[in-house]
Amino acid sequence: MRMTDIIEKKRYGNELDDREIRFFVSGVTDKSIPDYQICALLMAIVLNGMNERETLTLTTEMAKSGDILDLSDLENTVDKHSTGGVGDKTTLVVAPIAAALGCTVAKMSGRGLGFTGGTVDKLQSITGYNISVPTEKFKENARKYGMCVVGQSGNFAPADKRLYALRDVTATVDSIPLIASSIMSKKLAAGAETIVLDVKYGSGAFMKTPADAQKLALSMVKIGKGAGRKMSALITDMDVPLGFNIGNSLEVMEAVKVLKGEGPDDLTELCISIAAQMYSKSFSLGKVESISAVKRVIADGSAFETLCKAVAAQDGNEKLLTGEHEFKKPESCTEVFAPKNGYISLLNSQIIGKASSVAGAGRERLDDTVDYTAGIVLDKKYGEYIKKGERLATVYGKQEKTKIAAEELIKAYDFSAEKPDKKPLVYKIID
Amino acid sequence: MRMTDIIEKKRYGNELDDREIRFFVSGVTDKSIPDYQICALLMAIVLNGMNERETLTLTTEMAKSGDILDLSDLENTVDKHSTGGVGDKTTLVVAPIAAALGCTVAKMSGRGLGFTGGTVDKLQSITGYNISVPTEKFKENARKYGMCVVGQSGNFAPADKRLYALRDVTATVDSIPLIASSIMSKKLAAGAETIVLDVKYGSGAFMKTPADAQKLALSMVKIGKGAGRKMSALITDMDVPLGFNIGNSLEVMEAVKVLKGEGPDDLTELCISIAAQMYSKSFSLGKVESISAVKRVIADGSAFETLCKAVAAQDGNEKLLTGEHEFKKPESCTEVFAPKNGYISLLNSQIIGKASSVAGAGRERLDDTVDYTAGIVLDKKYGEYIKKGERLATVYGKQEKTKIAAEELIKAYDFSAEKPDKKPLVYKIID
Repeated sequence: MRMTDIIEKKRYGNELDDREIRFFVSGVTDKSIPDYQICALLMAIVLNGMNERETLTLTTEMAKSGDILDLSDLENTVDKHSTGGVGDKTTLVVAPIAAALGCTVAKMSGRGLGFTGGTVDKLQSITGYNISVPTEKFKENARKYGMCVVGQSGNFAPADKRLYALRDVTATVDSIPLIASSIMSKKLAAGAETIVLDVKYGSGAFMKTPADAQKLALSMVKIGKGAGRKMSALITDMDVPLGFNIGNSLEVMEAVKVLKGEGPDDLTELCISIAAQMYSKSFSLGKVESISAVKRVIADGSAFETLCKAVAAQDGNEKLLTGEHEFKKPESCTEVFAPKNGYISLLNSQIIGKASSVAGAGRERLDDTVDYTAGIVLDKKYGEYIKKGERLATVYGKQEKTKIAAEELIKAYDFSAEKPDKKPLVYKIID
Repeated sequence: MRMTDIIEKKRYGNELDDREIRFFVSGVTDKSIPDYQICALLMAIVLNGMNERETLTLTTEMAKSGDILDLSDLENTVDKHSTGGVGDKTTLVVAPIAAALGCTVAKMSGRGLGFTGGTVDKLQSITGYNISVPTEKFKENARKYGMCVVGQSGNFAPADKRLYALRDVTATVDSIPLIASSIMSKKLAAGAETIVLDVKYGSGAFMKTPADAQKLALSMVKIGKGAGRKMSALITDMDVPLGFNIGNSLEVMEAVKVLKGEGPDDLTELCISIAAQMYSKSFSLGKVESISAVKRVIADGSAFETLCKAVAAQDGNEKLLTGEHEFKKPESCTEVFAPKNGYISLLNSQIIGKASSVAGAGRERLDDTVDYTAGIVLDKKYGEYIKKGERLATVYGKQEKTKIAAEELIKAYDFSAEKPDKKPLVYKIID
């Protein structure tokens, strides 16, 4: 088999058969196919597409290209994946809820790049939290507490890593089959029986419209089902950040609020929806029943208790969660005030994410250090009325950084005389 | 300017502006753009196309990426280019005709790859012919005799060289803007005022249909005109080899026949058409007038005399042309006979080209040596009747090679009970 023939086939818009896709992925993994041939094929895929079968084969082959996490000795394993958003601390909320309901969330999570930190960064803002434990300990904790979130170790989907690096520099990122196979190859390798996806659209998301997010979600759900997993996807709005807090320890505090039933409406609504999908898919239950179960484990404190135990099991100081101890205070803060009267008609989450990163909460490169105390707390959200001179938000972090971040942050806002339309947070659920 | 943005623009089907194309070609030339980005853009160009202006800019930038032959001190310079065919010895005929009519054919010619040899190989089959003379001598000969054909020296269109090598291994060869810019970048750098193209279609050509050949020709004519050259293109049939002789010294002998008015009909017809275009374009004359001038310099022997003088000026033994001396004889030959009665309804020039290469007339790699005596002489052509057992052709060369070549050659034929339709040799002339 020759790579040139495979490129030619796709260049003329023809289907690649499974053997050809296998040849491609194995050549990507063992580096026998050079970068330039990979990039020619990627561009042909971007422009001529891939059908469901091709996308499924590409995904499963990439999943098999490296380590596979074997979770078969755990019961009711559930994974949750978000395509990435600003202020998205849902994993910290939905994992303990699902765990309290009998699911097992044994999850390897990546570090964040750009915008705010990833789930692992948020957890590391809890003093002592150990993100790298041996596999046996990882499984033991997951079995005991129903959840265990650690940093990614091992070599998952190396074929995807190589493809992703090349896509990034050849303008071939934006393609449904390539995005879907990239995400799902890692999710399949991560071993969970049930996978719930939170596919975001809007200013702070990769997909700009609900229609595009839905296409991507549908493709990923089909891949997962094709690979024998139980699947569900939520299409959700990321025009506006989730909750009021953006930044690592700030987000942990807000997640705790949701688990105590005191969280902001939007974040609470989304967490309940996601957790309900995790539970209902895993146990094949109805939607109404699942939602009330989720609400119950929040109300009775068992979800919060689960989080505290799981954090303690990873050597994290759970007293930071219960309020007995306090999180480290940020060095400084800068307040941002409304420049005029009006309803907040724009609260661009991409700009807010960037501002929080500037404040020190995110990283540009994987070896940058993150300031766990840094971030933004919003006072008002989209649709609320504010008077000129009232505080819009506070930026936390090192003094010089908060000032620059505050200048960035104000660009995220627009104001209108009339109250803007409310937009639904959960646009659609695919299951 | 970033290469990723340029790729993205073309990926979404947008026009690249001149600055972007310049950035691309300069990065290809100085190697600051890596192969993988080049190949992603090439595939995007193949699938999303390039308009006239983009193609012209790509071509002129590639032409400027290396040496440019300055022929401005010569008058009425004309170049002729064929997209490549089997038995195509037209340059050996049309160059002296045009020279005899007052044009200057100062031409650098490449070596052949695959199929039969290139013009330079054919000339080198004339004992003593020196294909590498200093530029001053090259121009002096061109001025004195109206023609001088030498081997390519210098570094012409290095950007095209790099692109071509990458296109070859990424299934991106077959694209009108890329083929047209590749050919024309070298022709523009070769410096002639007037360029006549012979764009071939059929089994032995790169373009399989007259329609595709016409598209390519049109694109090249537009590029040439856009770059200020006088242009003409002939769309001609290459389903069947030109003339009866294929192979280096064999083709020189047949070219001499045409110049003496004793050549085969098809080859003579094509040579007259091409030479007339060279003459009429160069001096802005009418077609009828040009054709009779061409016929005149054949009839009065002045074209043949010009070739002899030009060959002698390059230290070639012109007595091989006049018949006073004889070309070196091939070591051996193998005859091929008709397996049945019938009209020759197929004479696949691709297979014949391959067979002549097997016999020793062509080369697979640039450092292979060519057997100048090797080749094929056909007895009958397409449309002629032959009886079972009559000779179809003779293969010349080293004994063991001619046998293998003969087995290949017979596959080129098919026979029919009815006389097949005659096909026009010159399908169209664009000027």
